[in-house]
Amino acid sequence: MKMFKNYLKTQRELIDLNIECYLNKLEYPNVIAEGMRYSVLNGGKRLRPTLLLMVLELYERDLSLGLPIAVAIEMIHSYSLVHDDLPALDNDDYRRGKLTTHKKFGEAEAILIGDALLTHSFSIVTDETCGVSSDKLIKIIGMISRYAGINGMIGGQMIDIESEKKKVPLETLKYIHENKTGKLIKLPVEIGAIICDATKEEYKALERYSECIGLAFQIKDDILDIEGDFQKIGKPVGSDLELEKTTYPSLFGMDKSREILKELIEDSKKSLSIFPKDKIQKFIELADYIGIRES
Amino acid sequence: MKMFKNYLKTQRELIDLNIECYLNKLEYPNVIAEGMRYSVLNGGKRLRPTLLLMVLELYERDLSLGLPIAVAIEMIHSYSLVHDDLPALDNDDYRRGKLTTHKKFGEAEAILIGDALLTHSFSIVTDETCGVSSDKLIKIIGMISRYAGINGMIGGQMIDIESEKKKVPLETLKYIHENKTGKLIKLPVEIGAIICDATKEEYKALERYSECIGLAFQIKDDILDIEGDFQKIGKPVGSDLELEKTTYPSLFGMDKSREILKELIEDSKKSLSIFPKDKIQKFIELADYIGIRES
Repeated sequence: MKMFKNYLKTQRELIDLNIECYLNKLEYPNVIAEGMRYSVLNGGKRLRPTLLLMVLELYERDLSLGLPIAVAIEMIHSYSLVHDDLPALDNDDYRRGKLTTHKKFGEAEAILIGDALLTHSFSIVTDETCGVSSDKLIKIIGMISRYAGINGMIGGQMIDIESEKKKVPLETLKYIHENKTGKLIKLPVEIGAIICDATKEEYKALERYSECIGLAFQIKDDILDIEGDFQKIGKPVGSDLELEKTTYPSLFGMDKSREILKELIEDSKKSLSIFPKDKIQKFIELADYIGIRES
Repeated sequence: MKMFKNYLKTQRELIDLNIECYLNKLEYPNVIAEGMRYSVLNGGKRLRPTLLLMVLELYERDLSLGLPIAVAIEMIHSYSLVHDDLPALDNDDYRRGKLTTHKKFGEAEAILIGDALLTHSFSIVTDETCGVSSDKLIKIIGMISRYAGINGMIGGQMIDIESEKKKVPLETLKYIHENKTGKLIKLPVEIGAIICDATKEEYKALERYSECIGLAFQIKDDILDIEGDFQKIGKPVGSDLELEKTTYPSLFGMDKSREILKELIEDSKKSLSIFPKDKIQKFIELADYIGIRES
C-alpha cells in the first residue's frame, strides 16, 4: 500500500501541475481567477483524474492524451463542491480543513466561481487536448455533459437534498450514490476507454469496475462520517446524522455496511479479470485503498 | 417594422418549439426538469438564437444545422439569468412579469437548475447537431465555453457586481457591456459564420455588426431602466439608480446616450455593406428594432 500511495502522490503532483498550468493563464476578474485556483488546488486526492491516467497506462498510451480532460473533470468535481457548500445547500464553512469558497470569497462570488469552473472545463477539453480525434472529442464532451448534468451528478445532488431529514428506500439511496458521486467516477474510466479504443468487452469490464469502486467510495464516506477523524477528513464528523440522512450505515448498520463495502471491492477486482493480471495491479491497489482510506 | 416583428415572432415560435422538444425529454428529478423548462420557456425575445438563424438564412443554409446550438445558447443565457436573480446576487423576485426561478422553486433548487441548464446545453450541441463536421463543432464548443466563461459573460457579471454603488470609468463600463451581454450576442453570429464557412472579410463584418448591436442593446436597456414601463419590460424600473450603477445615461446623460445608441445602430448597418443589400434586410431591421424596442 505504501508503494501505491507513492504512485497516487506522483499522479497527484502531475495533475496539480497541469491544473496550475491551465488555471494560471486566467487573470481577470481577479476574484474569479483566484477563486477558481483556490477551489481546485485544495489538496484533493485527484481520484477522478488519476483513474483516467490509469486507463491510459493500462493501454500504454501517452498520458498527455488525457491530461486536459482529466483536469476538466476535476474542475467539474470542484465546482460541484463549491456550489454544494453554499448556504442555500449544505451550508458548510470548511472543506478539507480550509474555508469553503463562499466563506473565503463571498457568496455571490462563489456562485460565479463555480459557474466559471464548470464553463471553463469545456474549453480546456477543446483547446488543450492534442492527439484525440474530433469525433472522439465530441463523444467525450457529450458524455461529460450528460454525466455531470440532470441525468447524472446534478440529479443525484437534487434527490440527495430532497431526501434530507427523511428515511428513503434503498432504491433512492442507490440513485443518489450512482449519480451524485458515481457518475463522475465512471466518467474518467469510460473516457479513458474511448481514447484507447477499448473493445466492447474491455469497456464493459472497466465500466463495471468504476461502478463498484464508485459505490464503495461512497459507502466508505458514510462510514468515515460516523467513525472518521476531523483532523484527517478535514470536515466535521457526524454531519449525516445531524441532517438525519439515509446512508448505508443508517439502513444496514455498521457491520453490514463494512461487509457490503468489502464485497464491492472484491467485485471491482473480479470485473477486470479479462485483463492480464500484471496490467491491472494499480486498479487492484486503488480498490483496496478505497476500502482502507482514512480521509 | 410590423413585418419584422412578425418575422421575429415566427423565429421565436420555431425556437420555442425546439427548446420544448429538447427539454421535454427530461423527466427526473422533476423539480430540475420543471425548473429548466420554467426558466427557459419564459416568453423571452430569443434574440440570440434568432441571430444564429439569420446568419444561416443569409447564406441560404438549412436552419436545422444551427437549431440545437441556438437552443443551447438560449439555455446558457437563461441559466445566467437564474443565477443573477439569486438573493446573493441581484435578489430579484420577478423577471418578465413572472416569479424568478428561486422564488418559484427555492434557492438551492435554482442554483442546481442553473447548473443543469449550463451543463445540459453542451450535450444538446453534441447530441442533437446534425450536418456540422466534428472539427467545426469542437471549434464552436470551445467558443461557447470561452464566451460564456471567465473571459466572457461571467467576467462581465463579476465586474458588474463589483461596480455597484460606485462610479466606474467608461473603460470599465465598456468591459462590463462587452462581456456581460455582448459576448453572448456575438456568439451566435460568429457560430453562424463558422457553420456557413464565411470568408475572413465576411466574418469580420458580421462580428462588427454583432458588437455594435450588442452594445446598442445594452444602452437601450439602461435607457429603458429609466424611462421604461413596468408592464412592458416586466421588471421594476429604476433598479440601476437604486443600485447606484454606472450606466451610459449616468455617465453621459439621456440625450447623449440616445445619440450614441443611434450611432451604434448606424455603424452596425454600415459594417454589413460588403453583403448585397437585399440579403441583409433582416439585419438592418433587427438593428432598428433594438433602437426602438420598448421591452
